[in-house]
Amino acid sequence: MLLTLDLVGIFVFAISGGLVAVRNQLDIVGVVVLAMATGLGGGVIRDVVIGAVPPPAVADWRYLLVPVVGGLVTFWLHPAVGRLERVINVFDAFGLGLFCVAGALKAQEFGLGPAPSAALGMVTGVGGGIIRDLLAGRIPVIFRFGELYAIPALAGAAIAATGAELGVAHGVILAPAALVTIGWRLLAVRRGWRAPVSRLEPPADP
Amino acid sequence: MLLTLDLVGIFVFAISGGLVAVRNQLDIVGVVVLAMATGLGGGVIRDVVIGAVPPPAVADWRYLLVPVVGGLVTFWLHPAVGRLERVINVFDAFGLGLFCVAGALKAQEFGLGPAPSAALGMVTGVGGGIIRDLLAGRIPVIFRFGELYAIPALAGAAIAATGAELGVAHGVILAPAALVTIGWRLLAVRRGWRAPVSRLEPPADP
Amino acid sequence: MLLTLDLVGIFVFAISGGLVAVRNQLDIVGVVVLAMATGLGGGVIRDVVIGAVPPPAVADWRYLLVPVVGGLVTFWLHPAVGRLERVINVFDAFGLGLFCVAGALKAQEFGLGPAPSAALGMVTGVGGGIIRDLLAGRIPVIFRFGELYAIPALAGAAIAATGAELGVAHGVILAPAALVTIGWRLLAVRRGWRAPVSRLEPPADP
Repeated sequence: MLLTLDLVGIFVFAISGGLVAVRNQLDIVGVVVLAMATGLGGGVIRDVVIGAVPPPAVADWRYLLVPVVGGLVTFWLHPAVGRLERVINVFDAFGLGLFCVAGALKAQEFGLGPAPSAALGMVTGVGGGIIRDLLAGRIPVIFRFGELYAIPALAGAAIAATGAELGVAHGVILAPAALVTIGWRLLAVRRGWRAPVSRLEPPADP
Repeated sequence: MLLTLDLVGIFVFAISGGLVAVRNQLDIVGVVVLAMATGLGGGVIRDVVIGAVPPPAVADWRYLLVPVVGGLVTFWLHPAVGRLERVINVFDAFGLGLFCVAGALKAQEFGLGPAPSAALGMVTGVGGGIIRDLLAGRIPVIFRFGELYAIPALAGAAIAATGAELGVAHGVILAPAALVTIGWRLLAVRRGWRAPVSRLEPPADP
Repeated sequence: MLLTLDLVGIFVFAISGGLVAVRNQLDIVGVVVLAMATGLGGGVIRDVVIGAVPPPAVADWRYLLVPVVGGLVTFWLHPAVGRLERVINVFDAFGLGLFCVAGALKAQEFGLGPAPSAALGMVTGVGGGIIRDLLAGRIPVIFRFGELYAIPALAGAAIAATGAELGVAHGVILAPAALVTIGWRLLAVRRGWRAPVSRLEPPADP
């Protein structure tokens, strides 16, 4: 179950990474590398931190194959894609939801409490996108002003971690948890919802 | 003892990260995330490298709570802060001193020799700030021309590692070691001391 | 054998990092730090991922000394160097070849299969250069359009991993594998060979 979730998350994140690479006019190697970094980055960080080494992302050839395919598919099919930024956001939202939940559940399996599991789930979800944006020279989406990104991620991870802590089966909790993140993120993008923003102005630096 | 040192270091580094975020006009989520990355980054790198996984920064909720509080405090109180860059430098210097020493002592506890412990202490100290500056799109402070940053960090870490190697109790060595780093760094900032700089000009690239 | 390979790779990568630092007009501390990050980064990532902690790069003082010497040598001797970019490319190619092979062989020793070993060898080879370029604010060489970088790296790592899997002694397989990467990379730079590039234009983002 977690395997499938992980692989689907890797695939959609790989596509989001590939699309960013295409947008930056990288060549086919750059597209595949950025797809791999985006798809595998968050999970590798999670696995290294909880001590699950070597991570499946490195030791299991299926984990390597999936993002390579995602990158190649993106490279060959992208001319069919009209508005890249919106499509990146959709794939990224699905990757975010799947990874937050898978990350939180795996951390909980490794004996972490609910709060740390939720935090690590969020890191798993946002890690790949941060690596993608750093490598591509973009402002990481999590830091864009008023962007609702980290909060939906934390919400889904917290639901999954709390559910698992209360003994709910993984197969039962993962779909609603992931849907909270995905739905909230997509609605925020589509409707222009904003994160809570201070009414205070930052002072000018003299 | 190391726990308190770690938590205080995390708190002051979190504030330095939060202030950089405020200066970059990030929203409340961005401020908290950058505060967490700055406060926890160096310690997580150290713990992953020495095999102390899962790191307390991930598995212990107090380590999560402290930088969140640091970020929120920064966000709400920053209008009281007049000159951001100077205040960032002060908090950063304290975080640097505390982390270099705590990092060196923890590495030594895990069986590393004095030279590796000093090096890893320095990495612990500068790691959070490098992550902060990379995420915020600033030149990492450690790479600014003539900036006295890595040398005071290495000095404090080396004093702590040498002292621990010679059997001095952690509680005795940590204060003087941290004060060397903090004092040297603050004096360098205030008095404009510079790192040794080559008299040679780098050749122009043809 | 792997130790010598590692140390030579660290030395040449350290020089490439030091030259990038010199080109960016960093001071002596910045040159040494960037030399260390470039020389040790790829190997630390590999060791952390396969669970070989603490990595020799951290626990063994020789691994610390070599990049420091590489950085200092670069700093003091660079005025003798006429055309920095070309020289960076030469040292980088040697580091790439040595690290890809050493990384693949070490991963194989830790029980990974040939495909994961080849992939991790490539990551070991390109990791230090990516860290160097991120810290220096350059576009990572692996993402430059049409640059033949990742493909020669993967080729050498794959030859080494396949050879080791078939029972060829490390001492026999490493030289030809490294030479494939180094030669291919150097010829690509000198003759202007390009990575396969799509004939499709990326769509403009509306």
